[in-house]
Amino acid sequence: MKVRARWMRGGTSKCWVFDAADLRETGFSADSALPRIFGSPDLRQLDGVGGATSTTSKALIVEPGGIADADVSYTFAQVGIEEATVDWGSNCGNCSAAVGLFALENGWVPMTAGVTEVRTLNMNTGQMIIQTIPTPEARLPEDPQDSIPGTVFTGHGVELGFVAPEGKTTGAVLPAGEAVSAFRAADGRRVRASLVDAGAPLVMVDAESFGLMPEEYAMWADLIADRLPELDRIRRAAAVTMRLVEAPEEAERAIPKIGLVSAAVEAGSDVQVLMLSMGRPHPAMPITGSVGVTVAARTPGTTVAECLRGPVGAELRIRIPVGVMSTSTVERPEGRTVGIRRTARTLADAQLLVPDRQIERAAALLTAGAAS
Amino acid sequence: MKVRARWMRGGTSKCWVFDAADLRETGFSADSALPRIFGSPDLRQLDGVGGATSTTSKALIVEPGGIADADVSYTFAQVGIEEATVDWGSNCGNCSAAVGLFALENGWVPMTAGVTEVRTLNMNTGQMIIQTIPTPEARLPEDPQDSIPGTVFTGHGVELGFVAPEGKTTGAVLPAGEAVSAFRAADGRRVRASLVDAGAPLVMVDAESFGLMPEEYAMWADLIADRLPELDRIRRAAAVTMRLVEAPEEAERAIPKIGLVSAAVEAGSDVQVLMLSMGRPHPAMPITGSVGVTVAARTPGTTVAECLRGPVGAELRIRIPVGVMSTSTVERPEGRTVGIRRTARTLADAQLLVPDRQIERAAALLTAGAAS
Repeated sequence: MKVRARWMRGGTSKCWVFDAADLRETGFSADSALPRIFGSPDLRQLDGVGGATSTTSKALIVEPGGIADADVSYTFAQVGIEEATVDWGSNCGNCSAAVGLFALENGWVPMTAGVTEVRTLNMNTGQMIIQTIPTPEARLPEDPQDSIPGTVFTGHGVELGFVAPEGKTTGAVLPAGEAVSAFRAADGRRVRASLVDAGAPLVMVDAESFGLMPEEYAMWADLIADRLPELDRIRRAAAVTMRLVEAPEEAERAIPKIGLVSAAVEAGSDVQVLMLSMGRPHPAMPITGSVGVTVAARTPGTTVAECLRGPVGAELRIRIPVGVMSTSTVERPEGRTVGIRRTARTLADAQLLVPDRQIERAAALLTAGAAS
Repeated sequence: MKVRARWMRGGTSKCWVFDAADLRETGFSADSALPRIFGSPDLRQLDGVGGATSTTSKALIVEPGGIADADVSYTFAQVGIEEATVDWGSNCGNCSAAVGLFALENGWVPMTAGVTEVRTLNMNTGQMIIQTIPTPEARLPEDPQDSIPGTVFTGHGVELGFVAPEGKTTGAVLPAGEAVSAFRAADGRRVRASLVDAGAPLVMVDAESFGLMPEEYAMWADLIADRLPELDRIRRAAAVTMRLVEAPEEAERAIPKIGLVSAAVEAGSDVQVLMLSMGRPHPAMPITGSVGVTVAARTPGTTVAECLRGPVGAELRIRIPVGVMSTSTVERPEGRTVGIRRTARTLADAQLLVPDRQIERAAALLTAGAAS
């Protein structure tokens, strides 16, 4: 088997991007082909293109067209490492930033002088993301100069516009029915947090109520090093309040996300945020987290909104450990849209090679495993 | 810049393999192009094809011809991650196994029915490695079925024949001038070790003199967990005895290598070996380590030779944690040759893409850094 794929950077992720037609042409299902292409099952993914970590074992399957006037539809695949399986349960916000560029490089969407808009529909979540990419002279620049915090090299600018991201999981932007909920800290202190469903379910803790001063922002990650279990306890309690699960111990590790927020102390930012990812301080910001923070900033009474010094404009500047990221909010005919700036670049255009019979054998193994 | 490269598995390594002519055609030196292609300098190598670990930031540059009747010459490049630099100081035994296959896939060496021999010369070390690859019907099989310990998937069999590997670093196969040297353990015990220079400088400790019983082989890695500093002390003392350095603290972390050896207890193997790599038990076996063990087995009086139950034949079967690996020794006109079986496979055939000016910028940065 030989299948074309492009290795692309989307924001702060790398993933292998497949044209759905190319993958179909192989005659194998994505569930059986992707693990073998990535070299799974194997702790080291030695015989494939996977990078042997969850953040480097990612694929996108993209095709032109789709429902809801989409130019492009795409599905994110988290490819197993020690298991020859694919998890289709969630989207990857950073990888998403590669989809519009992939469509333009494939000639699926005509470019216009200035910027080109690509309407991309994520099939894992049903989220429409309108991507806006600079195309001066109606083509992609050869040496794109856009940059985002957390990356060393420049790429094509991509504005990801999340259309009407509110309540996609729970049905309401404030699933607790109130803007702020109270949780009890280990020392008895009353911790205030907003439970927001936008982009993904999110718990935004008022940092001051957790004992962190805005002036100490640069030290927050160190200051909470011993208190991570406490934050996870709040996160799990919030999962119950949001009716994501019935008991705290049932909460998934990645849903809801949790973060700390305070008013900004430096000029050039509106709020300060430290997100946690898989229980640890995140050096940057998950994309869905920035969508949630932006919606929360515009939702009166939330812990994020009350940090703002005045009414929020179209732009929200969020201080994060690696810099300041800006989001924008615009009204579109399709609904209020939250915009996040990313960059993307194609690293390699490749033919991936796997002997047919090795895929058949891996698929047979998987069936045998499931049957036993 | 667009440059063709193949992503290949060689043994238990993955590396990007470049035709030297393709790289030259870009107009950039390997020292400036490779780091940018790999995404360096960047802890995560986000914008390039590097895997952000030392074992996944490797390249080979291959070209037809060379001195000493070589069919192919190649240079191994360890590409820096946090620095935009390339280390040309050593070879990678596993990566080497991709070179013969690369030459055959490129049509540089005509294939013959049965097996095809490719004479490969490593330019980092001057080591000639004759590679023998199965080519039934004078072509590469589409679904190669060869397998080695430590890998999940099969590949093309590659016998790496190290021609006359003795004394390449120090000038003598036994640089200590004796087959066994004695070192003092922490508890006063006299530890016996052979200092061998073949493939690379190697310290083979008699496991029993270190307090490890042959019957306990499966537990050696656990049993030495607390004694790793002791082994490193012996390794550093041996480095002085071998005249690699003048004082123990000057010894490099990777040279000499150290391992433990005992007589085999299970049928199907001749000796049992546990190697250490960067101070920790190695799950398999570094290639240069297996060359050294094989030469030591044929050198009377060494700790390896005295473990053998009888005279060693052409084949030596070495028990390692992940299985049994066989080496062979044959006399060739060019000298005694140690053969190690590996497998190799081409994972992807790619065009790697980097804006020209980003390489220029990175190169300018490097110069600025060197000047400051």
